[in-house]
Amino acid sequence: MSEFRWDPLKANWVITRNSRERSPQEFIIKRQKIDMLSCPFCPGQEDKTPPEVYVATDPTLPAGINNWLVRVVPNKFPILRIEGSLTATRDGLHEKLPGIGAHEVIIETRDHHRSMAELDITEITAVLQAYRARLLDLRKDTRFRYLQIFKNHGLEAGAPVSHSHSQLMAVPITPPLTRTMLQTSKDYFQAHQRCLCCDMVAQEMAEKSRVISSDEHFVAFTPYASRSPFETRLYPINHCHDFALQDDDSLARCAVALQALLRRQHNLLEDPPYNFILHTAPPIGPKTEQKKYWHTLAQDFHWHFELVPRINEVAGFEWGSGFYINAMLPELAAQHLRETDPELAY
Amino acid sequence: MSEFRWDPLKANWVITRNSRERSPQEFIIKRQKIDMLSCPFCPGQEDKTPPEVYVATDPTLPAGINNWLVRVVPNKFPILRIEGSLTATRDGLHEKLPGIGAHEVIIETRDHHRSMAELDITEITAVLQAYRARLLDLRKDTRFRYLQIFKNHGLEAGAPVSHSHSQLMAVPITPPLTRTMLQTSKDYFQAHQRCLCCDMVAQEMAEKSRVISSDEHFVAFTPYASRSPFETRLYPINHCHDFALQDDDSLARCAVALQALLRRQHNLLEDPPYNFILHTAPPIGPKTEQKKYWHTLAQDFHWHFELVPRINEVAGFEWGSGFYINAMLPELAAQHLRETDPELAY
Repeated sequence: MSEFRWDPLKANWVITRNSRERSPQEFIIKRQKIDMLSCPFCPGQEDKTPPEVYVATDPTLPAGINNWLVRVVPNKFPILRIEGSLTATRDGLHEKLPGIGAHEVIIETRDHHRSMAELDITEITAVLQAYRARLLDLRKDTRFRYLQIFKNHGLEAGAPVSHSHSQLMAVPITPPLTRTMLQTSKDYFQAHQRCLCCDMVAQEMAEKSRVISSDEHFVAFTPYASRSPFETRLYPINHCHDFALQDDDSLARCAVALQALLRRQHNLLEDPPYNFILHTAPPIGPKTEQKKYWHTLAQDFHWHFELVPRINEVAGFEWGSGFYINAMLPELAAQHLRETDPELAY
Repeated sequence: MSEFRWDPLKANWVITRNSRERSPQEFIIKRQKIDMLSCPFCPGQEDKTPPEVYVATDPTLPAGINNWLVRVVPNKFPILRIEGSLTATRDGLHEKLPGIGAHEVIIETRDHHRSMAELDITEITAVLQAYRARLLDLRKDTRFRYLQIFKNHGLEAGAPVSHSHSQLMAVPITPPLTRTMLQTSKDYFQAHQRCLCCDMVAQEMAEKSRVISSDEHFVAFTPYASRSPFETRLYPINHCHDFALQDDDSLARCAVALQALLRRQHNLLEDPPYNFILHTAPPIGPKTEQKKYWHTLAQDFHWHFELVPRINEVAGFEWGSGFYINAMLPELAAQHLRETDPELAY
């Protein structure tokens, strides 16, 4: 018998199928291998992308344009563009806003052939530092209501370039799902005087059945109302609303947890196509004093990563209703992910 | 430059890309052909499905189990089951409800090889009559908050059986998207004393650029804030909240409009995988007097069909933000659909 499960953060019901035990093998997707004759993200091809807006250099390499470890560049084919003013126009029921924003690409490694799951802790830490730097810099532009960092891995997950990269999209409207999560967190805080995600983390750590791994700083688990098979979330255990407030030590610890989670998923599902999303508090917008531009207000929010192998099919029912159907019990998914590689340190 | 467009019915922003004109050919998907050795939906295979809950017979065929035109049967592998009581349980933040509901299959034709776009008006009318009959019957069960009728066509759209069919899912919770549409319609009515969709239909018919076809009863158009390329909606022009209140004449006229829309899509996109969804007012639930079970309350709602070729890829940005990105301008999509087959009567 299936069941409806409630996600108090996303304010959504998920139909969880538990009629029979399904093995992880049933969810393995044969990824389409893609490659380009000349990869614009490889060292030596720096002129194939717009000029970089951020670079982390590798101290072991000789100085020069080519000694980078992580590069951030504007997307050559951006969905949103930086130039222009944000003026809404309205004609009857039709309201529109110009597609103003920023669309950047974070090139995570020099190595064309290693995926993020295969990077080492130092490399992943450098990627997280790049995220932090870009968040802080783009918050100066008060037109942007939200800065969405996400990763598409594999063609099936929306990545036509195979060289490991993530993306940042600065948008002039708070995204619908972000707005919902900010609202549920705020409502919960007002009612309970506690953070919703802190309570969620505490309950997961007490119940253990959905926890994949944890240490004193981070915990990874499959959400009770996972929308998709093998969906996971990675939370800092101590409350913090804003990813950009993390210091280098915290980012290094986060890299350990994220690497372990990516490797478990990579091993269990044989390098599946996947997406991850960084959910963090939004910048406070136009009323900020310039010198405090990087402050954020939504202190009842709790930043986290959401990781989703691109397995679930959305058909007519899901598209039309907004319900999700998940064919893999989150408790079973967590067990498989826990057991996939007992040698993982984390 | 792309733009953000607001959908006042779904209360959502869509990013519409209009940087360059794209041809419909770029959106054609090679459908994976599927077939089974023995199709459970074919005449003569009636014992392969659970016993029928509705049947429309073909008067031109000799009487008997095998003379049906449309059959409705419970899904042999239902996502939701009819037996049980609706008791929610809660443990801390974890709330669940048993997966109670109904899951039925509407077999639309005896002919294994014709898709719905290839059925004639009489056949499509019989399908719409089956929808109406099942809505009226299932409203007797006051556990169901909503009855969702939808169609998956093609494996890529979630249909593992190729024999033309649609589905009905009775759910004990109003679906999230339905709840949003009921709320926006209600709020609009309270503010303006008019139906939101009536105003939307009037504006589309006046502006014409997104209208594909219309007569005095029905209008088909691409929504201003289409979430997906070549998405269309089919509305009755005169206000009506409840599909189940349509008489046979109205259903026959609807069949003409729906057939034309399906054929245009079939021709233009070469029989794409697609979904359609029937959006209609919900039954009023447990407080209904038994003899008036079929009444619905949400009279500020306006029933309609939503038709979506399964073309759009959902990647990390869409999954994480709730925004949709549509690479095909709705105005251009409407033009292509209008021009695809000038000989279509409608």
